[in-house]
Amino acid sequence: MAKEIERKFLVSGDQWKGDSKPIHTCQGYLASGGDCTVRVRIQGENAFLTIKGKTEGVSRDEYEYGIPVVDAEEMLAALAKKPYIEKNRYKITYAGMEWEVDEFLKENEGLVVAEVELESESQQVELPPWVGEEVSHDVRYRNVSLTFHPYSEWKK
Amino acid sequence: MAKEIERKFLVSGDQWKGDSKPIHTCQGYLASGGDCTVRVRIQGENAFLTIKGKTEGVSRDEYEYGIPVVDAEEMLAALAKKPYIEKNRYKITYAGMEWEVDEFLKENEGLVVAEVELESESQQVELPPWVGEEVSHDVRYRNVSLTFHPYSEWKK
Repeated sequence: MAKEIERKFLVSGDQWKGDSKPIHTCQGYLASGGDCTVRVRIQGENAFLTIKGKTEGVSRDEYEYGIPVVDAEEMLAALAKKPYIEKNRYKITYAGMEWEVDEFLKENEGLVVAEVELESESQQVELPPWVGEEVSHDVRYRNVSLTFHPYSEWKK
Repeated sequence: MAKEIERKFLVSGDQWKGDSKPIHTCQGYLASGGDCTVRVRIQGENAFLTIKGKTEGVSRDEYEYGIPVVDAEEMLAALAKKPYIEKNRYKITYAGMEWEVDEFLKENEGLVVAEVELESESQQVELPPWVGEEVSHDVRYRNVSLTFHPYSEWKK
C-alpha cells in the first residue's frame, strides 16, 4: 500500500504551462462513497486500476495496478459513472517539487487545478506564483465529485 | 474482457468430496450494486482483484487481475464490506466438466454450492448426482449477497 498525501490548489492564467507537454487522461469511477473509490484511468499509452481509501486530513491509502488499455476502455464505456473525466495533465517542476497541473476538458472545461504530492502531512512546500486558493479540503474539486457535479454546472 | 457464464446449484451430503483438496478462499467486496461489483479475493497463495459487470441471464462481463497478497489482506481488513466471505473451494471434474464446489465457513456455514462455467448460455451440462436445486437466478446465493445477508441469518 502507498499512502497518498497531497495538497491541491486552483490555478489561473497559463504562465505555468511553459513548453511542458500535456498527457491526455481519461478517468472514471466504478465505485465511490463508503470506504473507498475504485478508479479506472487511461493516461497516454497506459492504463491503471486504482483503489483509494477514505481521506483523512490530506492523506489516503492507495493501491494502483497497471491493466491493459483495452480493458480500461471497455470499463470506462460500460461500467464507469458518466460523464467520466477528461483532462490534460502536465508535470511541472517548481523549487525541486513535481507539480501536476490538470487542465480539465469537456464537462469540466475552465477548471485548472495543481496538485503536489508530499512525503508527510507536515512537509513544507514552496508555492509557485501561479497557484491561488488552496482547495485540498474542498470535496467539490475531487475528481470523483466532478463526475457527479461537473464544473460547467456549478454556475447555473 | 472475459465473459463469465455460469450455472449454480445447491449441494447436499458430502459424497461429492472424494479426496479432493480444499483451497481456502477469503473474498470481500469493495463496491457492489449499480453497474458493477469490485471483489478482492485471496485463494490459497494467490490474490486477485476482480471487476464484474451486471448479470444478464447467467452471463456477466469479468475483468480479473493478480495483485500482491499483502495488498489483498490490507484491503479485506480495511476497505471490504464486513463480514467478508470465507469458504473452502474444491475443484471436481464430472463428465468432462470442471465443477467448483464452495463449502462456506463462518457466517455462512452450512451452505454448499456448486458452480459450473459454460462456453455459451445454451451449452448442455450433465448434472452430477450430488447437485440439487438450481439457484443460478436466486440473488440470495451470490457471494456479494452473502456478505450482506449471511446464510446463518436466513432462518431467523
